[in-house]
Amino acid sequence: MRRNRIVVVGGLAAGPSAAAKAARTDPAAEIILFEQTETVSYGLCEAPYTIGGEIPDESTLVSYTPDRLAAEKGIAVKTQHRVEKILPTKHAVAVRDLRTGEVAEYSYTALVVATGSSPRKLNVDGEEGRNVFHVNSRDDTLGILRYLETERAGTAVVIGGGYIGMEMCEALKRRGLEVTLVHRYRLPMAGLEEETRTRIVEELANNGVRFVTNARVESLLQDDSQRVVQVLSTKGSFPADLVILSLGVTPNAKLATDARVRTGPTGGIVVDQRQQTNIDGVYAAGDCCEVRNVVNGKPMYIPLATIASRQGWVAGENAAGGRATFRGVIRAVAVKVFGLEVAQVGISSDEARASGFDVATQSVSTWSRVAIMPGSSRISVRLILDKRSQRILGANVFGSDGVVQRANILGVAIQHKMTVDDVFRFDMIYSPPFAPLWDPILIAVNEARKKMK
Amino acid sequence: MRRNRIVVVGGLAAGPSAAAKAARTDPAAEIILFEQTETVSYGLCEAPYTIGGEIPDESTLVSYTPDRLAAEKGIAVKTQHRVEKILPTKHAVAVRDLRTGEVAEYSYTALVVATGSSPRKLNVDGEEGRNVFHVNSRDDTLGILRYLETERAGTAVVIGGGYIGMEMCEALKRRGLEVTLVHRYRLPMAGLEEETRTRIVEELANNGVRFVTNARVESLLQDDSQRVVQVLSTKGSFPADLVILSLGVTPNAKLATDARVRTGPTGGIVVDQRQQTNIDGVYAAGDCCEVRNVVNGKPMYIPLATIASRQGWVAGENAAGGRATFRGVIRAVAVKVFGLEVAQVGISSDEARASGFDVATQSVSTWSRVAIMPGSSRISVRLILDKRSQRILGANVFGSDGVVQRANILGVAIQHKMTVDDVFRFDMIYSPPFAPLWDPILIAVNEARKKMK
Repeated sequence: MRRNRIVVVGGLAAGPSAAAKAARTDPAAEIILFEQTETVSYGLCEAPYTIGGEIPDESTLVSYTPDRLAAEKGIAVKTQHRVEKILPTKHAVAVRDLRTGEVAEYSYTALVVATGSSPRKLNVDGEEGRNVFHVNSRDDTLGILRYLETERAGTAVVIGGGYIGMEMCEALKRRGLEVTLVHRYRLPMAGLEEETRTRIVEELANNGVRFVTNARVESLLQDDSQRVVQVLSTKGSFPADLVILSLGVTPNAKLATDARVRTGPTGGIVVDQRQQTNIDGVYAAGDCCEVRNVVNGKPMYIPLATIASRQGWVAGENAAGGRATFRGVIRAVAVKVFGLEVAQVGISSDEARASGFDVATQSVSTWSRVAIMPGSSRISVRLILDKRSQRILGANVFGSDGVVQRANILGVAIQHKMTVDDVFRFDMIYSPPFAPLWDPILIAVNEARKKMK
Repeated sequence: MRRNRIVVVGGLAAGPSAAAKAARTDPAAEIILFEQTETVSYGLCEAPYTIGGEIPDESTLVSYTPDRLAAEKGIAVKTQHRVEKILPTKHAVAVRDLRTGEVAEYSYTALVVATGSSPRKLNVDGEEGRNVFHVNSRDDTLGILRYLETERAGTAVVIGGGYIGMEMCEALKRRGLEVTLVHRYRLPMAGLEEETRTRIVEELANNGVRFVTNARVESLLQDDSQRVVQVLSTKGSFPADLVILSLGVTPNAKLATDARVRTGPTGGIVVDQRQQTNIDGVYAAGDCCEVRNVVNGKPMYIPLATIASRQGWVAGENAAGGRATFRGVIRAVAVKVFGLEVAQVGISSDEARASGFDVATQSVSTWSRVAIMPGSSRISVRLILDKRSQRILGANVFGSDGVVQRANILGVAIQHKMTVDDVFRFDMIYSPPFAPLWDPILIAVNEARKKMK
């Protein structure tokens, strides 16, 4: 019998996860992972924290070097190799070795596309300036760190008020820069509830970030050394020694679509529960895919490392002949904005309305621990509910203590389609240094129950 | 129509909860709450923290004064009134006014027994010494505080290594006392798993508590001012300026049993899902009751404020003509032992075996946040599993970061009879400052899945 060969395209998160799982599933198979950069298995989510100095050694963000990944997981890791074409009828890929420029074909038994995402661009003059950075690769991290170390930067402009934008504002403030956040809309963090977003604005202001709203950037003005010095926007110009572009990402699906792999309305690759695409033998995983939200059953584009890892596992196992499934997500995310912990689980009230639910909301603000105990602080819980089924569809939780794991508890309730009555019956821990007699979750659902009767 | 009268016996936790809920359920009813002490609605669980000084003002532990409870909740609150007899055929109680000594009968439409629990005694000579305290009432708290403030105490002996024992060791160390913990068995905290208990021993030692194991106290040696000076045990004698007895509690069921209210093997009053006893019109709630553990379906004695509050609500609502149910508990508890957070949800491995489950266990030790982030620390998760159903029956979680809410997540899984596969599919938050890519819960259940295949 011929030995199976599983080819994986992409080495950041889903790719290594798929390759490693494939190797465990079929130890006899040959597993080849192609990555066009020099880096695999990079902790991109930690980048803002090494830029901010909380993680002093940037190299610790590399979880596996290519050699270690190869040795420990039994994978042939080929960095600086760009997969340029999928040839589905031949069950092969055309791969360019970026060091030599040569192209070779590799046949595959199964292929896993894990090509990730690309940062959105501004599409304005000056964007290619040498002090303009995305936060989307190890090169970006190293570029920012090198720039901060070698050139005296006093002011930074962060363009785009999403997750990375929030984290970079904090990181750059920690480095002592004056930070201006320029955002397209009235409030940052689209997708969160209005009250959460308003609280984030307050936290940015409390921490000295200048927040410029409803602003469209028109150009980045460079000096004659290709260094941006000013960000020109519809809301004024801002001096900038450093510019961070955090405008979100789009799926890298072109390699796949060129081979007639189907994408959805989100632009992400469409996969089934086995992470299989519409093309025989071709799987996809991670940021290049869309994912089913189990709350409303709709495909969404949610580029998160947790999803990439799980999809990678499932794609890798199935590519190697296994039968794993990935049923979808609720969306479970959190961000730290200075002293504020913000978490979201499930769908937003806007998404819930758009999905045809009979939406009610309930917000409470209460104590994270027994109120009179040291360390107790205010915590806000906002529930998004369906009046017909009495189900919890989503939640925002924010505060400065015990936010994320409480959001996870609500996440479990959302994932398992529990009603407010189900959640109110949760037998939860009361212990003065950790949690009050009535947990904020129970207080929130109890208020919601009254409203929904 | 005659106005309904609902009589509640006991004012600590379940009683006020029942009375307030009854008043809300039937605003026309007369609600009378009898309490034999001067205090109602006391935060007994916070007592160790005010003794330790973390809550500087003890009076903040009184959530409601009798007057406020009466005014805000519409309850006739009668303190210093002891209910001495239930007369079920007359639907009445005989009540002694402790200020006058007079006994009067009060008829009731429905009665809620919330007589609480009493601390276990040592039954040795010297136990009545004036520096020997339980931690079971406001008088106890005030007695300890007064003693510490007026007499110079350098050494304390805590007898009994349960929850209160742990908390009192820490509280008295915070007050600068030398603390000896004398315990009947090899390990403290019966009911937790061996590895958790061993870790607690380590934490006590690291914080300078002398832990005397397998020791039976034989007497408390008093000086001629009725002050204990030495604790004499089978493992030696220990000097004591202050003695804390933390030997657990037993249900105060005598008032009820005298009226032929049935108790179970635990000694607690037996109630149905509506908190009704076997006697018509007589409800019971709180520490005087036993409670059904939904994990194994067995009655247990679990004296916790969370359970008392909920049972009080249900008893109060039903006593006032409503139809509420309390389905039981999983048991969800936590304790802080110096720097260690310890939580338990569900049943122990011993209880699981005794209940006929085909028990497996899985322990993991991993990181509370992304390992390289500041604030990340080791967290241990031990799962108790049923091999046949693949269900999680119980868990211990300990560490110093994010323990309690993670235990609550496992608690939800236990309460909803979820399998390891169900839990492994939890879509959980990854955010470097708060939680790692693979949450400790997911790592633990993934290991368990491998073991159970």
